[in-house]
Amino acid sequence: MNELDLVERIRKMAGKAAPPLVAGIGDDCAIYRPRAGEDLLFTTDQMIEGIHFLSSTKASAVGERALARSLSDIAAMGGKPRFCLVTLALPDNLSGAWARSFFQGLMRLARKTGTALAGGDLAHDDQVHLDVMVCGSVAKGKALRRDGARIGDAIYVSGRLGRPWESKIQPRLQLGQSLIGRATACMDLSDGLSIDLHRMCSASGVAADLYRVPIFNGASLERALHGGEDYELLFTLPARAKPLAGTFLIGHMIDGPAGEIRLDAELVKPLGYSHF
Amino acid sequence: MNELDLVERIRKMAGKAAPPLVAGIGDDCAIYRPRAGEDLLFTTDQMIEGIHFLSSTKASAVGERALARSLSDIAAMGGKPRFCLVTLALPDNLSGAWARSFFQGLMRLARKTGTALAGGDLAHDDQVHLDVMVCGSVAKGKALRRDGARIGDAIYVSGRLGRPWESKIQPRLQLGQSLIGRATACMDLSDGLSIDLHRMCSASGVAADLYRVPIFNGASLERALHGGEDYELLFTLPARAKPLAGTFLIGHMIDGPAGEIRLDAELVKPLGYSHF
Repeated sequence: MNELDLVERIRKMAGKAAPPLVAGIGDDCAIYRPRAGEDLLFTTDQMIEGIHFLSSTKASAVGERALARSLSDIAAMGGKPRFCLVTLALPDNLSGAWARSFFQGLMRLARKTGTALAGGDLAHDDQVHLDVMVCGSVAKGKALRRDGARIGDAIYVSGRLGRPWESKIQPRLQLGQSLIGRATACMDLSDGLSIDLHRMCSASGVAADLYRVPIFNGASLERALHGGEDYELLFTLPARAKPLAGTFLIGHMIDGPAGEIRLDAELVKPLGYSHF
Repeated sequence: MNELDLVERIRKMAGKAAPPLVAGIGDDCAIYRPRAGEDLLFTTDQMIEGIHFLSSTKASAVGERALARSLSDIAAMGGKPRFCLVTLALPDNLSGAWARSFFQGLMRLARKTGTALAGGDLAHDDQVHLDVMVCGSVAKGKALRRDGARIGDAIYVSGRLGRPWESKIQPRLQLGQSLIGRATACMDLSDGLSIDLHRMCSASGVAADLYRVPIFNGASLERALHGGEDYELLFTLPARAKPLAGTFLIGHMIDGPAGEIRLDAELVKPLGYSHF
């Protein structure tokens, strides 16, 4: 399939631009018309064949996961997804059925979450390499940040940790939106609880005291603490706030060296995934 | 250099977020606060080692070019650059000096054009693969589109065509902004005049009659017509508009099969660069 055919096919799958998107695929840029009183959120995440997924992974699963990872960042700030741009490099022999299935998987999640496919870039490469940028919106000044946790806050995660790679990512969009005005800090768990909580604590200038880590069925504590790609939300609520149904209280923020984490009084080193 | 060190270095180079950017590098998403009455423009462009640049290309030149290509799309819509996200995959041995020089080159052009570096994503790969998303802004409803050319309009390009790859890209931001309210259509020349003009004509439902193609010193007519990566603006003005100093009148839009191009009455096939 040549590039024009593939672009035409993607354009059909994306459908016509609808407000707040003024123009989608087909010109030099996509055009978005902001609404009064909204802040816009931007995040981008890449996936590389052989690193973030296997050659044998179903194309539709790659497409869905690629979008889900970026949506998880939008969820972490309490945002509502608006649109995405998809950059895709792929070998010639994948530009037909593989590409179609990739975009089908991506569009399924896009439609479910109200994310318009607004544009992107295509190129040829020996292996699949892709990058999904998502724009979300949130009421002005209300985005959930990671630097607002205070001493005494209760620490929560939105699900059990250490899940196997193959399990579907469910970006916690509704939970994120429901935390606006309630959570003092929030972020998503993409690199592992130990490193991500360390980042939240460092940014907030507090230490963390954990007494429980909810473990995914079959996973080890090691994996739950240090494994990446959980895509659950990590958030803090004021000490007196009511616990949130369906989420797990794992500890509290305490006065201590910024970024330090203890589990049952034992020091936990931030060992999560490093990209180099 | 490990990832945290590299991120810290990039964060320093990017500097503190300033309005309209509320938050840059360091949280799950960057936050942008739109101003009343602005439309936002979004474009993304990838560059792959061995395809879009050579391993021997200076890292600073790669960084500058990566940003320049996306800025050219913003220029083509008449936009003012606001911020960029940079996605970068690179081999371990390039994560030190190479990465620093890459971001230095990119930041030089970013500062010159008022483009904040707001975030991105890093990964490890065997070869350099990067993607630069740029957001620009334009007065509501004023973006220059490619589908507005009418029969009788004069066709212009902003510079001589067929330039060698090594020459610097100068995104035509000022020209693009000055065309707002004047040009009936505008786009940038990234794939070659023949295919890009064909796209403009097809989108606008007109044909083009060319009588002149300004050729870069030393290039062939063939290259000027079909070579890619010129990054000049292609635009149309109403028939009676005054010619624009420093730009080249190359022909007129005529009544004819949508997308058809003739040069001195000879049919020109749209042969420009295809990405597959």
